[in-house]
Amino acid sequence: MFKKEVTVYSPATVANMVCGFDILGFALDGPYDRLTIRLTTERGVSIRNFDDFNLPVEPEQNVIGGALLAMLQVLEEGIGFEVDSTKIIKPGSGIGSSAASAAGAVVAANFLLNNRFSKLELVGFAMYGEKVASGVKHADNIAPAIYGGVTLIRSTDPLDIISIPSPRLFVTVLHPLIEVKTSSAREILKKEIPLKDAAVQWGNVAGLIAGLMKNDYELIGRSLVDIIIEPVRSILIPGYYEVKNCGLAAGALGGGISGSGPSVFMLSRDIETAKKVELAIISEYRKVGIAFETHVSEINYQGIKIVIH
Amino acid sequence: MFKKEVTVYSPATVANMVCGFDILGFALDGPYDRLTIRLTTERGVSIRNFDDFNLPVEPEQNVIGGALLAMLQVLEEGIGFEVDSTKIIKPGSGIGSSAASAAGAVVAANFLLNNRFSKLELVGFAMYGEKVASGVKHADNIAPAIYGGVTLIRSTDPLDIISIPSPRLFVTVLHPLIEVKTSSAREILKKEIPLKDAAVQWGNVAGLIAGLMKNDYELIGRSLVDIIIEPVRSILIPGYYEVKNCGLAAGALGGGISGSGPSVFMLSRDIETAKKVELAIISEYRKVGIAFETHVSEINYQGIKIVIH
Repeated sequence: MFKKEVTVYSPATVANMVCGFDILGFALDGPYDRLTIRLTTERGVSIRNFDDFNLPVEPEQNVIGGALLAMLQVLEEGIGFEVDSTKIIKPGSGIGSSAASAAGAVVAANFLLNNRFSKLELVGFAMYGEKVASGVKHADNIAPAIYGGVTLIRSTDPLDIISIPSPRLFVTVLHPLIEVKTSSAREILKKEIPLKDAAVQWGNVAGLIAGLMKNDYELIGRSLVDIIIEPVRSILIPGYYEVKNCGLAAGALGGGISGSGPSVFMLSRDIETAKKVELAIISEYRKVGIAFETHVSEINYQGIKIVIH
Repeated sequence: MFKKEVTVYSPATVANMVCGFDILGFALDGPYDRLTIRLTTERGVSIRNFDDFNLPVEPEQNVIGGALLAMLQVLEEGIGFEVDSTKIIKPGSGIGSSAASAAGAVVAANFLLNNRFSKLELVGFAMYGEKVASGVKHADNIAPAIYGGVTLIRSTDPLDIISIPSPRLFVTVLHPLIEVKTSSAREILKKEIPLKDAAVQWGNVAGLIAGLMKNDYELIGRSLVDIIIEPVRSILIPGYYEVKNCGLAAGALGGGISGSGPSVFMLSRDIETAKKVELAIISEYRKVGIAFETHVSEINYQGIKIVIH
């Protein structure tokens, strides 16, 4: 017997985690999108939006649709999905809005199908949603949304996802209300980089993984350094270094650009520091003159939450 | 009261560890060099060699001398060292011959000085020995020789060394008796690499660290991939891919070039497999027609061994 309807809360995520361009990401407790999915007996996907973002409802043009249509490819006849989507995570914020939709949809659908797919398979389906959003089937927001915690995407082909244990970490996010298209943020990157810079970067990646797994906050902080992507992409974020420096001064371990921006995140070892960092950033960013939002959250170790009706 | 004389056994080491160019290394149980050091009351370093390698004895031109002279810089007057060096690890083998000399010397000297320096400081001194050998103050052989086990050199300036816990691992080394100069092996590397290749590499570095710390042999194996350095440097090692492939076929988890070559190493999860890999490599390398040696060893988790007289 299948359950006929389920609701999930699908969280925002931070991709790249400073030095881990394209390979690391983690999930936040909030903000999150809400999706309610019903099984139908007619092959296909129908989508209703309960928000003001005017996202397309044609499944081929919708992130949720892209993900669920990929799943339908391997399902028998007589199965379809109706989706009610209430998006809270603003599209284009750089904290995994499209991933929350795509990952939430496949996790909810899988629940209705009695969990016949593995998490790894769900990531594979949800990546088709990312393709609708940005043209690229990347997994660095999808994987942490589905697995929770810090996740490593060692390889996307074949897909190889590894959960990285970590100590408790608290996240302060600044979202400047400007648009940075993922595609533009990719285009401005240099296609070639110096080998010696790459070696510095993989030293920091190695240090970050070791720091997370050793619960060594100091090492985590020292390793949160990006000499490749940050110098280029930060140009698209007004006041970037001022925000980062005031976050560090307020006690954050480190931080950087969330995904391809414009959001900026800082990591702290406790909630009090994360809130101090938020206050410092608010005060600093007011000087920049761009509207913004902030969020404070613990890293979400559970991933997407399923609510049974 | 200072002890007046000490002997140390300073092991061979493998730098780079496939995907960790310039940042990772590990120590072997053998082969090792033997160094006996005596404290003298006259500032300076005198060196006697008890082997057939005809290495220079002038301290400024000798790896041991370079390391100990760096240490003497911060020591009070009235201290000097006499060193008897018996080198077993062939210079130019690519398994850290110069590092064994430099690291062994400073560890022994430090013992005679009642361990006044930290391991990190010792690495700093020993790097001056590497500078004598190759012109570059690298630490990816020095650090594992001094710390034991797998070590990460996250940064050389400032020096930041992190011990990476690992499961038991066994190493098969093939040393083709040809010369590959470290400087030549550096010169042929491309100065610029594609960003997308760099991201693949740091995904593998992250996977390797996670695999070691999770005792996940499969993940270690999947992560032992180098798409940047190996395709270039393997050109200098006749029969390289044949050796690697027959090692993998014999059950090794993975492997690659040791340091800048010409030695090749393969990692296995038990001694039986490491010996099977050795036999397979011997049989394969006989076809190449170059003289060679092989070694089988466990990773050495202790580093340099001190023998008290």
